[in-house]
Amino acid sequence: MNKGEEGGEDKEVVSLQTLSKKMDDFAKARDWEKYHSPRNLLLAMVGEVGELSEIFQWKGEVARGCPDWKEEEKVHLGEELSDVLLYLVRLSDACGVDLGKAALRKIELNAIKYPVPKKTDDHCVGDGEDSSSKIKLNEEN
Amino acid sequence: MNKGEEGGEDKEVVSLQTLSKKMDDFAKARDWEKYHSPRNLLLAMVGEVGELSEIFQWKGEVARGCPDWKEEEKVHLGEELSDVLLYLVRLSDACGVDLGKAALRKIELNAIKYPVPKKTDDHCVGDGEDSSSKIKLNEEN
Amino acid sequence: MNKGEEGGEDKEVVSLQTLSKKMDDFAKARDWEKYHSPRNLLLAMVGEVGELSEIFQWKGEVARGCPDWKEEEKVHLGEELSDVLLYLVRLSDACGVDLGKAALRKIELNAIKYPVPKKTDDHCVGDGEDSSSKIKLNEEN
Amino acid sequence: MNKGEEGGEDKEVVSLQTLSKKMDDFAKARDWEKYHSPRNLLLAMVGEVGELSEIFQWKGEVARGCPDWKEEEKVHLGEELSDVLLYLVRLSDACGVDLGKAALRKIELNAIKYPVPKKTDDHCVGDGEDSSSKIKLNEEN
Repeated sequence: MNKGEEGGEDKEVVSLQTLSKKMDDFAKARDWEKYHSPRNLLLAMVGEVGELSEIFQWKGEVARGCPDWKEEEKVHLGEELSDVLLYLVRLSDACGVDLGKAALRKIELNAIKYPVPKKTDDHCVGDGEDSSSKIKLNEEN
Repeated sequence: MNKGEEGGEDKEVVSLQTLSKKMDDFAKARDWEKYHSPRNLLLAMVGEVGELSEIFQWKGEVARGCPDWKEEEKVHLGEELSDVLLYLVRLSDACGVDLGKAALRKIELNAIKYPVPKKTDDHCVGDGEDSSSKIKLNEEN
Repeated sequence: MNKGEEGGEDKEVVSLQTLSKKMDDFAKARDWEKYHSPRNLLLAMVGEVGELSEIFQWKGEVARGCPDWKEEEKVHLGEELSDVLLYLVRLSDACGVDLGKAALRKIELNAIKYPVPKKTDDHCVGDGEDSSSKIKLNEEN
Repeated sequence: MNKGEEGGEDKEVVSLQTLSKKMDDFAKARDWEKYHSPRNLLLAMVGEVGELSEIFQWKGEVARGCPDWKEEEKVHLGEELSDVLLYLVRLSDACGVDLGKAALRKIELNAIKYPVPKKTDDHCVGDGEDSSSKIKLNEEN
């Protein structure tokens, strides 16, 4: 994987606050706020998740970094990922939730729920079959 | 709606880059990178979208700001919104997509696709029946 | 609500077995079986759920029977509901699950989990505020 | 794959009409009809699609028939597939759509949209790179 693909080192710094503000201005300028109720936005987001899934639906397993994808597929993928994000940001605002703050808190909760395993030895670090139920990135219930 | 609920003025400034970095560190520390293939993460995100939907499923229409919700419901909502976001950020990284950059570009594309209507008069600004097909916040394709 | 809208009295009798057989013939004739792995079909179904959601996304609350919808909207709705069903049937087959049998069993499990409340009085039949957590049609966890 | 896993030969014959009737009786007996508005049921179905996705989320590619799954996983899978089906049937009823009739019609439309390729030769039947856009089981738009 190329430098910068993960971990965010070389990425453009974009805050959720910036996206929230831009979306709010966008809706206000078009008088669309009246349509942006929580459940309308939620269903719109589900629609975008569907479009994102369609990109992956017939591909079988996809390797990290999507190395074999055409440039236009990657661009399309970026658009659908963005659509999900933009509705998610807008939905959070419509619900009065500070998404950035909530996300930072959730990562902390996850770190408590899934503590880093102690490395006593090189060959037995949390790799057993039973770990499959513990690999959730996010808290489930 | 209270000050700060929308538009992002009073929100904590949290960048996608920060979340991406935290998620990457989190996965590396637990040796979970091997599980984070694009389709695994996509399905995990769909799972979280399901949990988010369950919060709204029996509520009928919900007003902006969720004014009648209990504090614990709001906290739970923030957690589920965060779960979707965190997997979305992680999925973008697993696909080699700079999500913040893509989102800013998508907002620009949306502004071109849905230009701000000219206000020639107070009483006829983009409110007609036909506007229903144009209220999408995001490009549909 | 019109006669036949619910309860199935006037509906065409269509079995899941019939749909399963038709889908199998359809895929075989086009040599598409190779694409119909469980996760491919699941993501395809998520895509169709997204399209179904898009029909409802900007409508606000919709009354039972969708009384104000245009005929073409109802036809489109029937197509998207069908798309979800057809992929669900196909996914069940790809997983070796007898969907009809499983569904009948699930209804029985639900009846055990949510017993019919005894009607001792007209004014206190399971309608209290706390019932909100019990109105799930299906078992959750 | 075992006999009867696909094509429906050995399956229990269960009609959508039967499921619809059972669901209607179930809701009436519990006075739950008031909760079963179209958008409530749609979001409940999205919730179940999420639970179904969670079963598959960390598994990587899954072979047809799920040959390596434990019996309890298969049972759980059958329950989640059923939950999606039951809400889908109930949603169709709440919208006044005859799902069985619509599904049969949709298969016919699909057969017109994706005609069976003529077999002029053994080695060139619809296998080319460009066919990837044509392998949809269902019509997209």
